[in-house]
Amino acid sequence: MAELVGNCLIAQSGGPTAVINASVAGVVAEALNHSCIEEIYGSLNGVLGLLNEDFVDLASESQQAIRGLRTTPGAALGTCRTKLKKPQDFERVLSVFKAHNIRFYFHIGDSGSQETAAKISEAAEAQNYDLRVIGIPKTIDNDLPATDHCPGYGSAIKYIAATVKELSLDADSMGQGDLVTIVEVMGRNSGWLAAGASLAKRRDHPNDPPHLVYLPEVPFTSEKFLDDVRRVLKREKHCVLVAGEGLVDKDGNFVSVENSTTEAQVGGIGEFLKDLVEGQIGAKARVARLGLTQRSAAHLSSKTDSDEAYLVGQAAVKAAVNGESDKLVTLVRGDGDNYTCDTGLSALSDVVGNLKKLPPEWVNEDGVSLNFQFFRYATPLIQGEVVVPYENGLPSYVRLHKEGVDKTLPGYEA
Amino acid sequence: MAELVGNCLIAQSGGPTAVINASVAGVVAEALNHSCIEEIYGSLNGVLGLLNEDFVDLASESQQAIRGLRTTPGAALGTCRTKLKKPQDFERVLSVFKAHNIRFYFHIGDSGSQETAAKISEAAEAQNYDLRVIGIPKTIDNDLPATDHCPGYGSAIKYIAATVKELSLDADSMGQGDLVTIVEVMGRNSGWLAAGASLAKRRDHPNDPPHLVYLPEVPFTSEKFLDDVRRVLKREKHCVLVAGEGLVDKDGNFVSVENSTTEAQVGGIGEFLKDLVEGQIGAKARVARLGLTQRSAAHLSSKTDSDEAYLVGQAAVKAAVNGESDKLVTLVRGDGDNYTCDTGLSALSDVVGNLKKLPPEWVNEDGVSLNFQFFRYATPLIQGEVVVPYENGLPSYVRLHKEGVDKTLPGYEA
Repeated sequence: MAELVGNCLIAQSGGPTAVINASVAGVVAEALNHSCIEEIYGSLNGVLGLLNEDFVDLASESQQAIRGLRTTPGAALGTCRTKLKKPQDFERVLSVFKAHNIRFYFHIGDSGSQETAAKISEAAEAQNYDLRVIGIPKTIDNDLPATDHCPGYGSAIKYIAATVKELSLDADSMGQGDLVTIVEVMGRNSGWLAAGASLAKRRDHPNDPPHLVYLPEVPFTSEKFLDDVRRVLKREKHCVLVAGEGLVDKDGNFVSVENSTTEAQVGGIGEFLKDLVEGQIGAKARVARLGLTQRSAAHLSSKTDSDEAYLVGQAAVKAAVNGESDKLVTLVRGDGDNYTCDTGLSALSDVVGNLKKLPPEWVNEDGVSLNFQFFRYATPLIQGEVVVPYENGLPSYVRLHKEGVDKTLPGYEA
Repeated sequence: MAELVGNCLIAQSGGPTAVINASVAGVVAEALNHSCIEEIYGSLNGVLGLLNEDFVDLASESQQAIRGLRTTPGAALGTCRTKLKKPQDFERVLSVFKAHNIRFYFHIGDSGSQETAAKISEAAEAQNYDLRVIGIPKTIDNDLPATDHCPGYGSAIKYIAATVKELSLDADSMGQGDLVTIVEVMGRNSGWLAAGASLAKRRDHPNDPPHLVYLPEVPFTSEKFLDDVRRVLKREKHCVLVAGEGLVDKDGNFVSVENSTTEAQVGGIGEFLKDLVEGQIGAKARVARLGLTQRSAAHLSSKTDSDEAYLVGQAAVKAAVNGESDKLVTLVRGDGDNYTCDTGLSALSDVVGNLKKLPPEWVNEDGVSLNFQFFRYATPLIQGEVVVPYENGLPSYVRLHKEGVDKTLPGYEA
């Protein structure tokens, strides 16, 4: 096989995570090690940049900026929720790649967005254009199959568990009894994030908050919910419960759908449960909806997660340079008692359209708590604290200089 | 004056702050220095403990526990929102104090709750019972008069500004334009907390997020709000705005009142503004309601604030031992260019029933941004990061052992 020489391109897609930029830093740092990679480009706003030929020169960024990416939240290159669907979109992407001699393409994204990577790979093959496409996993939802866990998840649950711990101390000190604290977390389709809140419990303290965890995997009924809350209030005088936003009833319908003037979306489960508690039990309830901070609170990210996000970026480059393509980098947990993690590769086709659910056998029979299997799985993912630089009292994050790459093609109407 | 010898008692009241326990630690540490103070007691759940004779022995707590209080959120002794009003309540408190030879009473609380301290002082004087009562300031709302600022405020705005910074990076990366991020912060009566979000702006970057700050001090109109948002969207393509929960219209009525099945309360301003933006501008809006994390996120507290919270605890003991009573410890800012802060004393009567407003001259003419006077005031308060110990990936907080003090009186029906 003749060595492939050319430029590389990185794109970020979907919702950011606290560590999504660490993967960009990993790609850039590793790309510099390989002379077959000439220019290192970033696509602005994910696939929009691919269509609009909106590239920036990442090699011209300072070393500090690339290092700073390892602790900076948001998607530093910009992202989008657009999916490429039409055949002409993929033709356009190929034209743009050819115009810039892109030979190595790194796509940071979740299961849905890796479909785009797979289709770009397919389009290149159809045109006999030698292109290496490697997907890099990213999602706080932890629902990518084929990988033990996803970069972004560890930091999200570290933040959630720490916040639940702090809110619980606050609630526990309010002293007049019968106070229900409802923490609403993200996770439309699965309970990975809600389950992560359980890490707030101290070892061997099963009665620690969160007292109840409601997962989208366990059908919700108001009767059981009210019984659960009453039981905890009797025992603890206050109750801290965590609910995933996508709770469903026994028929699979969302328990709470929030109306917005522009769209209907899942959410508002916290307020729904609050009304139940106040109306049916008469206890005071308060809602903490953690919202977007779950994916952006880089000041409290997990060092393990951040390091792994960097590692998958490096591994993607190594794989591409070694001739791999149409693959997703995965995280592979070691077998030993002590946590170790290495990278692997999986076919993109194994990932696309599949979502990894929280294993039902990790949920206790009560339906509102997790057993040791979940703790064994998740505890290592939140270990270590990223040292974020502070300036003038606040975390100091980088913004890329974003030196544009000259466009060579006529514009494109998507 | 004969030296007063006896026991001391500490009570926490109202909503917790991230540093409310640092003041308890300061009292305990300083009390140990003075032989005239014999036992060091804590009242469980604020004034409820005073009525119910529910005391714990703080001197029996370990050194680690007292040190751990300096970084633990929630009110470690418990708190409550009850106010003592009836004359017989104060008689009861005096009986309890006499039964336990309480001669030094330290009341940690905001303006409203210091009224209780003042009345206890008055009741003691009426009965010729020699009691030193010292109030210790505490509130994230920063609305206590007589003191330059309040312990609790600096940590709250450090958390708010850092979170706004992180949410802004997330929003800025979403790339498809016309996204409005609405951050709802506490502050029913004043804009101190909302104003603090401005610290997220980098020096000399007035166009940094938050782009717009809505304060309860500035009457709200939908027309101006929509104009403001449209202007920012045109310039920045996205808009991050911060709103205090207690925004009022020109007649002084709350713009948004949230209905709960048990009570109506201020709140929901975020959803109200979201509906305005989506309905009138057609832009996508998302709400981050920071909620109770603003007062409990001890993992991101300000070292300056935490140290000052400890300092006011120490100062309270020194004042009481020196014969002062019926006073509030205050924070007094030095005159120099570099921030310094010392403690002072003010009559409790100067504080009770008064609230300190954000000075109108610190708000720019546009009504949605703060000028250099606010930055000069607030920037020093968020400096420094408290080093919170971590265990197993999460902040490690202390719980007091709470060894009860024997009751000697018959029970009391409040």
